[in-house]
Amino acid sequence: MELIPESTWDNEPAPHSDVVMSCRVRLARNIAGFPFVNRASETQCNEVMRTAREVLLAMGNNDDNGDCQMMWVDLNNSTTRDRRLLVERHLISRNLDESKTRRAVAISEDETLSVMVNEEDHLRMQVLAPGLELGGALERINTVDDAVESRVDYAFSPRWGYLTACPTNVGTGVRFSVMLHLPALKITNEIERVRRAARDLHLAVRGYYGEGTESAGDFYQISNQVTLGRTEVDLLDEFEQNIIPQIIAYEQEARSILAKRSEPLLDDRTHRALAILRNARLLGLEEAMKLLSRVRLGVLMQRLDDVPLKAVNQLFLQVQPAHLQLHAGDDLNADQLREARADLVRKTMA
Amino acid sequence: MELIPESTWDNEPAPHSDVVMSCRVRLARNIAGFPFVNRASETQCNEVMRTAREVLLAMGNNDDNGDCQMMWVDLNNSTTRDRRLLVERHLISRNLDESKTRRAVAISEDETLSVMVNEEDHLRMQVLAPGLELGGALERINTVDDAVESRVDYAFSPRWGYLTACPTNVGTGVRFSVMLHLPALKITNEIERVRRAARDLHLAVRGYYGEGTESAGDFYQISNQVTLGRTEVDLLDEFEQNIIPQIIAYEQEARSILAKRSEPLLDDRTHRALAILRNARLLGLEEAMKLLSRVRLGVLMQRLDDVPLKAVNQLFLQVQPAHLQLHAGDDLNADQLREARADLVRKTMA
Repeated sequence: MELIPESTWDNEPAPHSDVVMSCRVRLARNIAGFPFVNRASETQCNEVMRTAREVLLAMGNNDDNGDCQMMWVDLNNSTTRDRRLLVERHLISRNLDESKTRRAVAISEDETLSVMVNEEDHLRMQVLAPGLELGGALERINTVDDAVESRVDYAFSPRWGYLTACPTNVGTGVRFSVMLHLPALKITNEIERVRRAARDLHLAVRGYYGEGTESAGDFYQISNQVTLGRTEVDLLDEFEQNIIPQIIAYEQEARSILAKRSEPLLDDRTHRALAILRNARLLGLEEAMKLLSRVRLGVLMQRLDDVPLKAVNQLFLQVQPAHLQLHAGDDLNADQLREARADLVRKTMA
Repeated sequence: MELIPESTWDNEPAPHSDVVMSCRVRLARNIAGFPFVNRASETQCNEVMRTAREVLLAMGNNDDNGDCQMMWVDLNNSTTRDRRLLVERHLISRNLDESKTRRAVAISEDETLSVMVNEEDHLRMQVLAPGLELGGALERINTVDDAVESRVDYAFSPRWGYLTACPTNVGTGVRFSVMLHLPALKITNEIERVRRAARDLHLAVRGYYGEGTESAGDFYQISNQVTLGRTEVDLLDEFEQNIIPQIIAYEQEARSILAKRSEPLLDDRTHRALAILRNARLLGLEEAMKLLSRVRLGVLMQRLDDVPLKAVNQLFLQVQPAHLQLHAGDDLNADQLREARADLVRKTMA
């Protein structure tokens, strides 16, 4: 497996990138004539793999799969480190990493398109984009979807729409997600208000690695939960034009309140965080994420002049365990990993 | 009251100064013909004050009271800030600061000799010295004691020795104390073993400000508790030649174990501490003391080349609230005090 060591796709200036790190549109699809993954035999799973591989590798540039040929990663023949790398880049889910089923992922070279095979559904296709650009991402995933559908039959009911293993995905099978960086709402203790409001709107608020994971570095992934009975455009409009801008506005308001009312506290947190990142000799993942989050807020609020935002954004990824191992070696024990993390951060932030 | 703003007496190279910050010999004396302080009337207390003032201000250079004339500070006519300054410099006890009795202190210009008047006893005379030099300090306090005794009659029993308000001081009335910096024993969790051993030897282990105070910055004040039935020289020998060198050896051993077994951990703590001191915008007293302690250990263990030990030693004093107020103004609220502390430390350590 050959991944770009420094993933760079999310560093360009993108809409609302001060709060929205990235967004994602995901489609859940199943191939007609096969049971859902949790009921399929090994032979059937293998057959799905074979079909998917043929279809996905046959896609050309005009199918909008990224710059060129898709890369096929057979996850049953890959190392734990490589699977973790894919999780850390949000190219596969934790479930797919840990699954015992025959499974794979196809990834475009620029890593903005990935198709998981034999996750909960036969195909989970996603387009990732920097900032808040769900409209463009939806357009692109639809092109990919059409290209795949021209080569296989999807499980589809004229009454219900696309059929999926979990009822929440039946219908369009679409899910919109955004990865939000909400450090100011965390500091002002308003994050719970956002969580409650999201719950009332039937949105899911998840951690840094999606379902079942905790928030880290003040990142929150917010996505729609129900698709049945609503059109994609309907969902998109509500999500991108209404809900997410409101959360962005909350966060921005919290930032300006902090700047006005708690300047010394904010400066203290920011400069301490940067100082520790620049000087620690041992650094755990959770602490690194927390400190990077504070520095990112400090940079965005013009409290730190000499720190490039791009370096901070990249470090969120590079401090993850599998990425560190890629840099520093696979056979590090826990203490050595904390040392390697501190070394990398210290050198990058110097 | 005019104190030297930067107290410098303890910064020369002194015996065992890597572990022993300072040492102190104190004599408890009472003037014959007056009840002990806790039983004396206001008139009697005033009379003790008058006598003490006359005797102490009359002492000349040949009485070994320091470089020149003693300074008399009437604590009932001094500000809270000034009394705190004296506590922070260990020139008066917390008890004397908080007492309601008519009380005073006489201090030599170099601040190495002080005589508290109407603390628990009529006179509490102390000589402070840097490092471990109790022998010299004892010699000096004895000269002062003789000078005072040549002018007043002490309460003395041929059978029991000098009479004092608390039975633990009866006899020679002498107490030896050392202020030890034991950061390595704290890190290796062996400090409790030292405490237990000290208790078994009838020694008192106290905090940074003596009786009834907590340890701060890994400083521990150790002193003998019983004087009755033992000669000064006897006590001194046991304390200075035997007990304290053992504790010093423990601490040094803990430091070399740390250097060998936990180098990354030690470097991490040291560099983080220095980084925070150099970058924090808000700094509480307890945290400042903790971080300074780590930096002091780092300097002594040659982990930091660009930090002068003298600056660190002075900061332990300068970060105390009354010293900060002396620098930054008396009318600071708690938040402003934390800001002023961070400013001072940041500039000093830059």
